[in-house]
Amino acid sequence: MEVSIFSFKLDFLDKNTKARAGTIKTKHGTIETPIFMPVGTVGSVKTVTPDELKDIGAEIILGNTYHLHLRPGEDIVEHFGGLHSFIKWDRNILTDSGGFQVFSLAELNKITEDGVTFKSHIDGSKHFFSPEVSMEIQKKLGSDIVMAFDECVPYPSEKIYVAKSVDRTKRWAERCKSYPLKDHQALFGIIQGSTFKDLREISSKQLVDLDFSGYAVGGLSVGEEIPLMYEITDFTTDYMPKEKPRYLMGVGTPEDILNCIGYGIDMFDCVMPTRNARNGLLFTSEGRLSIKRADLIKSDDPLDKNCSCYTCRNFSRGYLRHLFKAGEILSMRLNTIHNLSFYISLVKSARNAIREGCYDKFRDNMLIQLKGGNNV
Amino acid sequence: MEVSIFSFKLDFLDKNTKARAGTIKTKHGTIETPIFMPVGTVGSVKTVTPDELKDIGAEIILGNTYHLHLRPGEDIVEHFGGLHSFIKWDRNILTDSGGFQVFSLAELNKITEDGVTFKSHIDGSKHFFSPEVSMEIQKKLGSDIVMAFDECVPYPSEKIYVAKSVDRTKRWAERCKSYPLKDHQALFGIIQGSTFKDLREISSKQLVDLDFSGYAVGGLSVGEEIPLMYEITDFTTDYMPKEKPRYLMGVGTPEDILNCIGYGIDMFDCVMPTRNARNGLLFTSEGRLSIKRADLIKSDDPLDKNCSCYTCRNFSRGYLRHLFKAGEILSMRLNTIHNLSFYISLVKSARNAIREGCYDKFRDNMLIQLKGGNNV
Repeated sequence: MEVSIFSFKLDFLDKNTKARAGTIKTKHGTIETPIFMPVGTVGSVKTVTPDELKDIGAEIILGNTYHLHLRPGEDIVEHFGGLHSFIKWDRNILTDSGGFQVFSLAELNKITEDGVTFKSHIDGSKHFFSPEVSMEIQKKLGSDIVMAFDECVPYPSEKIYVAKSVDRTKRWAERCKSYPLKDHQALFGIIQGSTFKDLREISSKQLVDLDFSGYAVGGLSVGEEIPLMYEITDFTTDYMPKEKPRYLMGVGTPEDILNCIGYGIDMFDCVMPTRNARNGLLFTSEGRLSIKRADLIKSDDPLDKNCSCYTCRNFSRGYLRHLFKAGEILSMRLNTIHNLSFYISLVKSARNAIREGCYDKFRDNMLIQLKGGNNV
Repeated sequence: MEVSIFSFKLDFLDKNTKARAGTIKTKHGTIETPIFMPVGTVGSVKTVTPDELKDIGAEIILGNTYHLHLRPGEDIVEHFGGLHSFIKWDRNILTDSGGFQVFSLAELNKITEDGVTFKSHIDGSKHFFSPEVSMEIQKKLGSDIVMAFDECVPYPSEKIYVAKSVDRTKRWAERCKSYPLKDHQALFGIIQGSTFKDLREISSKQLVDLDFSGYAVGGLSVGEEIPLMYEITDFTTDYMPKEKPRYLMGVGTPEDILNCIGYGIDMFDCVMPTRNARNGLLFTSEGRLSIKRADLIKSDDPLDKNCSCYTCRNFSRGYLRHLFKAGEILSMRLNTIHNLSFYISLVKSARNAIREGCYDKFRDNMLIQLKGGNNV
């Protein structure tokens, strides 16, 4: 079961924070952390091509096991030689386990020790996910990083229920660990425990004992207050091995990412940059910008004067406002390119600051900048 | 009023058909005819960037005066230095006059000798278009080819009404002709007359007398049978000057374009390749293909094995089917790139055949090919 192709090296540790910069190596290339992973739910990062993702600087994207199982189905993807080849993306892919979606999107039927029965949110068809099923699907998808199948409890949940769920997640993690994946695939465990520190500690220790290639903090950003999310993240990373990559699932805003890098997180994913782009909400180095704003109608400025993405190099705020107001699909594309570029350049700048040992200053300055100027 | 920058040269005449190959030169570059113009209704050719259009080989695109007047308004476009600079397209642009949309899309209020009062299809706001208003808008848009403001009668219409309308279109054309456009702008007249040959002849002669830089056949492809559309087009081109470009507005299918090139048409525009692409209907060298087809689910083939567009170079029918079924926006993009490439490569091939004096054989072979194989 030992994964030989996957490696993680710590390159730099920040002086005044827990921030780290590292390098992940896999069959599909190198990922410099901290990293942001654009979400490609169902075989495409919405609106953009693989070439555009490369141009943006994406080193790894995320695919959703739940969505790809429902459409087109893992057997179809396998027929095409796996997800990389199906979608023509030759860099890294992480697939989630489907756990989160089964518990949040689908109509849940029954949770047993064996697994979860649920109905598809698309057509109501009945499906069953277990640790083994999730591993089998992800094996067929052929992703570079495979996530263990976990139970995601809603927020808030009773502590007694969360405790049981942490135990089940551990037993499910063991079953995932003993499933034979492909040689190039690395398996990450997911730490649960909701907002209970003692349960987070227990979950961390249980999973670390199983010796995964990396560890994720799951079950956050599900409705709890931001300061509490920060507190739990900061607490949990103390129980995660230094020599393994740490992934905070589904987080978050630029501010969240800046803060959580400071708590020692290496990897992030979130639909926020892509979804907000399609809704006309842009992230800029001077704060958020709604492209709908009436005063942008004659603006010759780029979205972000500090950005060198394709959108900012070529198009004015006035034109982008027009495209959005006219409902043009090109609006969603150009906004997506910008927002993803912003996120990826943010984590690259964070890495530079860590290398220079001044992450705290960088973070604090950026947090002030992001509050400034032209907020929506 | 003389337009000095615009020129048209006839390069080749086919031997056995009326097909011609020519070269239009304008401030924004060279257009080799026969040409297909992708439709960029409201400041973007739907789903694609200017760079992609260049990659596809587009030499000229069409903008809609009616739509751009309503959104964002010609004054906004002028503020950005005109349509080329607003949308970042440095090749040629033709703008229609708004006539067709006013008579087909908008809620028509009143037609007088002066012009047309109508309500916007977007918000019901009241607007007035006249020859002078249409010229003023197109002047502000700064297009390379400006279309005269005409009256488009519905099909079918009483001959007596069409005759009156032809006369009015002539008087409106005179008013357009005497409007001072920008130096780089060329004005085309639009021949009307519905499906009445004698009225088409009258309209042609009236407009030719006014000496426009080019001539369009308007008011076809509005509900009449295809053979009748062909007959009227074939008839009308005999009354159009040889030394001026000839534009058949809003036509059509690949078959229509092949046939009408044979009748001596040089320029085409149609929403069909872009709209059908968004609806999953692809044009290929072996006929039409519905990307929804269940049997494509495991197909490794490109959309069209004879096509070298970005989509065909990179993606399988199976993946494109999946994207369409999953409602991914990337599906619309990749399909649009292919369909536009198909249209543009079709007219380029037609030009080559004309140069070699064998247009009839090329057309007949292509018409057989397009019927074949994998039709929907």
